[in-house]
Amino acid sequence: MRPVTGAPAVGMVGGGQLARMTAAPAAALGIGFAVLALDPRESAAQVVRDVVLGRHDDLAALRELAATVDVVTFDHEHVPPEHLAELRAAGVAVRPAPEALVHAQDKGVMREALERIGAPVPRWAIVETAAEIPGAVGLPAMLKVTRGGYDGRGVWRVESVEQAERVMAETPLAPGARWLVEETIPFDRELSAQVARSPHGQAVAYPVVETVQEEGMCARVIAPAPDLDPAIALTASELALRIAGDLDVVGMLAVEMFLAGDRLIVNELAMRPHNSGHWTIEGAVTSQFENHLRAVLDLPLGDPQAVAPHAVMVNVIGPDKPIPPLTEAYRHILARDPGVHVHLYGKESRPRRKIGHVTVVGDDLESCRARAQHAADYLTGAINE
Amino acid sequence: MRPVTGAPAVGMVGGGQLARMTAAPAAALGIGFAVLALDPRESAAQVVRDVVLGRHDDLAALRELAATVDVVTFDHEHVPPEHLAELRAAGVAVRPAPEALVHAQDKGVMREALERIGAPVPRWAIVETAAEIPGAVGLPAMLKVTRGGYDGRGVWRVESVEQAERVMAETPLAPGARWLVEETIPFDRELSAQVARSPHGQAVAYPVVETVQEEGMCARVIAPAPDLDPAIALTASELALRIAGDLDVVGMLAVEMFLAGDRLIVNELAMRPHNSGHWTIEGAVTSQFENHLRAVLDLPLGDPQAVAPHAVMVNVIGPDKPIPPLTEAYRHILARDPGVHVHLYGKESRPRRKIGHVTVVGDDLESCRARAQHAADYLTGAINE
Repeated sequence: MRPVTGAPAVGMVGGGQLARMTAAPAAALGIGFAVLALDPRESAAQVVRDVVLGRHDDLAALRELAATVDVVTFDHEHVPPEHLAELRAAGVAVRPAPEALVHAQDKGVMREALERIGAPVPRWAIVETAAEIPGAVGLPAMLKVTRGGYDGRGVWRVESVEQAERVMAETPLAPGARWLVEETIPFDRELSAQVARSPHGQAVAYPVVETVQEEGMCARVIAPAPDLDPAIALTASELALRIAGDLDVVGMLAVEMFLAGDRLIVNELAMRPHNSGHWTIEGAVTSQFENHLRAVLDLPLGDPQAVAPHAVMVNVIGPDKPIPPLTEAYRHILARDPGVHVHLYGKESRPRRKIGHVTVVGDDLESCRARAQHAADYLTGAINE
Repeated sequence: MRPVTGAPAVGMVGGGQLARMTAAPAAALGIGFAVLALDPRESAAQVVRDVVLGRHDDLAALRELAATVDVVTFDHEHVPPEHLAELRAAGVAVRPAPEALVHAQDKGVMREALERIGAPVPRWAIVETAAEIPGAVGLPAMLKVTRGGYDGRGVWRVESVEQAERVMAETPLAPGARWLVEETIPFDRELSAQVARSPHGQAVAYPVVETVQEEGMCARVIAPAPDLDPAIALTASELALRIAGDLDVVGMLAVEMFLAGDRLIVNELAMRPHNSGHWTIEGAVTSQFENHLRAVLDLPLGDPQAVAPHAVMVNVIGPDKPIPPLTEAYRHILARDPGVHVHLYGKESRPRRKIGHVTVVGDDLESCRARAQHAADYLTGAINE
């Protein structure tokens, strides 16, 4: 529903935590905000008034969302490109546009485009059989489905042709998906460079952060990346700005990179608010969620600068066993640390599920790191004091 | 509806901007949040999923809200005390409790209590006729209704008995309301001291701010109050903490004070998030909205400290003529100043209606003041460049 003030409205496909966290700046800016969610119990659907219930791969549901808003955007990459083309043909403002978004939906298309624009990428190839891998990129290799993966799913490190054959035999490919292989990169650490970009071409770059992955999932983010050579940080930001421009991205773009020595290699792209930018809620003048909204509405972008020397964000990831009751955990961690910022997504805990995050902003990096990690560990029951 | 995670839920009576702004930290903390609103077009009802439609003076509606949450709290003071007593008798956790809240609902009860606990107040009296005023507090005097006033409504400065007689004849008293008269205070400026307090007695004090009133409404807030003698700031905070403790306040308490020379005089109390604390969203580690939620749930309170040397909040108040279209205004003010924080409440503009606010946080007070004022003035059409 459009606001009574006549302000514009944004519709987000997907009812996860990214949509949930986008709702707050939408309310602050006085713009309308609707989500397309699978279920009223989904994270965003729990807190947003304007919820269209339906699937992201159901064109009718997408049309229903589009009918109530001025711009359609996304909290994930799983909308079929042909549906996006249909929406656009029907006059819906889809941002990012399907031609841009496909680079975040299909890792094969992404690799081709990055190579074309001269961005640094690993050696890669599209293969149909495991036997092609040694000749294409060598072994060990990273084997990936081009479409449908997330949070470590759809990615395997394979040591042998036999292992790759097994994975390929056991894994049904999503529609349109292919097999991508890449050389393994012996990197020193992983970085993420986020930018926001508007339809009229304004762009801003957030400080480059370090991301730490565990079991294929982002475990924590340190902003800015500690002790990063300023020249490399600048190169990473310029690269992200160039990718955003060359691919005509609108909204937030996260460019995940490996840093090997002083060499940057692009790993993944995301065209939406991203886990590597959750720290911006408290840690930057304008959060990634607000700048995503401003960008897709073609409003001037907000200041991406950090408000403090350091911010550390630690994900709260569901453990194998049940987590402590929320109120009990809160009594402990909030009393212990009045400055910790806890975000929980309203999601029941399941193993390897992102159910929240904790951010600490401050002057001392080690203190931020220890405090955020402690709160996250206590919330998952990994520690109990 | 309670969260699927089993987290607790808070119900707020009133669907205004205070409830709208409380929704964001409720979602972040992963707790449930419901509002009782008069109309689905009200400010909070536009953005919150769990809305009970009904009147704040309808006991059945209050019970309906209470049935879905763990704690009932308030975004205004207008719930009849007898309804609160009924709710509490039915086992509902009402926070602040009716015995505390009455001091924010009835200025006569407030004056009596403050006098009893030794807090500095103006000379005051309850009168039935205008003729009593000169003997009670002298003339000119402030004439107030004890119940039902807000934003300058229900308060008159009277110069003569005849003028007071006219006001009293023309103004119907709300149920339970009486006439209060107070001496006029020739103050230098106005301050607000905010504290949060929990049922188990933990309390935290926010920096003392200066509030600037125009036509009986808060126009802007400067945090902390510039050039305030630290001893006076400390006295103001201690006074607010003492009032919160002595009146057994739970949640946020704002104590509005006059500063005359080095003398503090309490003007008003509010037991909820308050306009003088909107700056805390960006300007403090933990916002007043989050601390109100934490307090009413008896969770440990967050750090109330400022994150920067200065913050200036300017209200966007509906002018007499129509305001410029939002998107047009945004194009100008957001492009001019990427660091300005705009909050609009989804309310149509009407004369003398608070429809939003703007906050700027930074190192230089004059710059913060100029930037926030410019954005607010542009939003209301008071300036057009």
